[in-house]
Amino acid sequence: MENDLKQAKALFFDYFGTVVDWLSPIANALVENAPAGCDVDWKEFAFKWRSSFFTVAPTLGDGNSVTFEEVQRRCLLESSSNNQWGWSEDQINNLVQSWVLVVPWEDSALGLRKLRQKYICSTLSNGSTRLLVDASKRQNMEWDMFFASDLLQGYKPAPEVYQRAMKVLRLDPHECIMVAAHAYDLKAAAALGMKTIYIPRATEDLGVNLDEYRFDKTISSGGLMGLASVLID
Amino acid sequence: MENDLKQAKALFFDYFGTVVDWLSPIANALVENAPAGCDVDWKEFAFKWRSSFFTVAPTLGDGNSVTFEEVQRRCLLESSSNNQWGWSEDQINNLVQSWVLVVPWEDSALGLRKLRQKYICSTLSNGSTRLLVDASKRQNMEWDMFFASDLLQGYKPAPEVYQRAMKVLRLDPHECIMVAAHAYDLKAAAALGMKTIYIPRATEDLGVNLDEYRFDKTISSGGLMGLASVLID
Repeated sequence: MENDLKQAKALFFDYFGTVVDWLSPIANALVENAPAGCDVDWKEFAFKWRSSFFTVAPTLGDGNSVTFEEVQRRCLLESSSNNQWGWSEDQINNLVQSWVLVVPWEDSALGLRKLRQKYICSTLSNGSTRLLVDASKRQNMEWDMFFASDLLQGYKPAPEVYQRAMKVLRLDPHECIMVAAHAYDLKAAAALGMKTIYIPRATEDLGVNLDEYRFDKTISSGGLMGLASVLID
Repeated sequence: MENDLKQAKALFFDYFGTVVDWLSPIANALVENAPAGCDVDWKEFAFKWRSSFFTVAPTLGDGNSVTFEEVQRRCLLESSSNNQWGWSEDQINNLVQSWVLVVPWEDSALGLRKLRQKYICSTLSNGSTRLLVDASKRQNMEWDMFFASDLLQGYKPAPEVYQRAMKVLRLDPHECIMVAAHAYDLKAAAALGMKTIYIPRATEDLGVNLDEYRFDKTISSGGLMGLASVLID
């Protein structure tokens, strides 16, 4: 199977959680925008906000025009029982925009650079194009392409989203590897014939029973550097 | 006006002719694929092929799904009076694919690197996404984003093509500069409220009367490095 994987032409990366750590910057942003006198575990709330995205995104499915930022806003309000702490409009906007502050895991920048020497490396993310461009620019992360929910007109795991990305790059599913820290994402990709590589991350798939899933490969350590070792070395 | 230009957030670049030289690699590809005993000035033919693209693309307009490669194929056959020299199917495919061999003008790589420090720099090209990704990858040219005719579902100068690119990046026209070696392209961008910068190139706009056009700025020398001097230094 590893030879099969090595023969792929493109790697599609889930972004939030897989390539970047969202938890620290989002928890920080929550602390900075905390309404006065508020006694909340903001790290715990960050997980709640993030989890609600995973509940909402699959219901959006294909062909919608709800932006990533609108989804984040809805999830923020829902997770806080309709803004129970009284965030101002500015604070809500700050929080939604704070997703641009995500930071690459320590293996991401170097791993991506190695992988790009051999493969087309693109995001395939539920984020927005502008957010991915801005976040990568801030961090000097270079990609071959960005595919995002607005460009692909839908949210993972809708199959059309993966299919449109492959069509634009003129690739067949067997030439493509989906790389993610989320089992649901890889399951959707595998159903279309894409190859799948799972990268466990400390913040992702908490409470998911991985025994229920099969991936072509799991990178047990080293993140994107570990991935580069498997695919290139 | 230069202060206005400096305040832009994104630069959209026409690709073929403006950022890269297509003439040498295409003329070479024609020589390499010349049917035996064929006495043709291939450089002259390369111009003929390229010119026919400019005749055909505007007729394709908005919302079509004709690929860049299909257009190039049609133009190649038309320009050669329906393949008068008897190219094989393989040779025709080679020639259409040879557009990936374009080479950056000597100022392009360094100029782009400088400009990206301050601006979002994206292609806005009638090429295909895959071709732009592959060509840039071959040449180690790093972009913030690729917008191409397949992603934008149409061909310049259809206004919707420029509008979709701006919408995806969430930018208003006055925040965007279109950079091109083609007056028709800048005219279409200006009509939408985008700012315009003209970069003359030896292979482009031959026979075009520039007195009939107005641009916000013309970079009289230095190409993308000259552009960086105007916008950054």
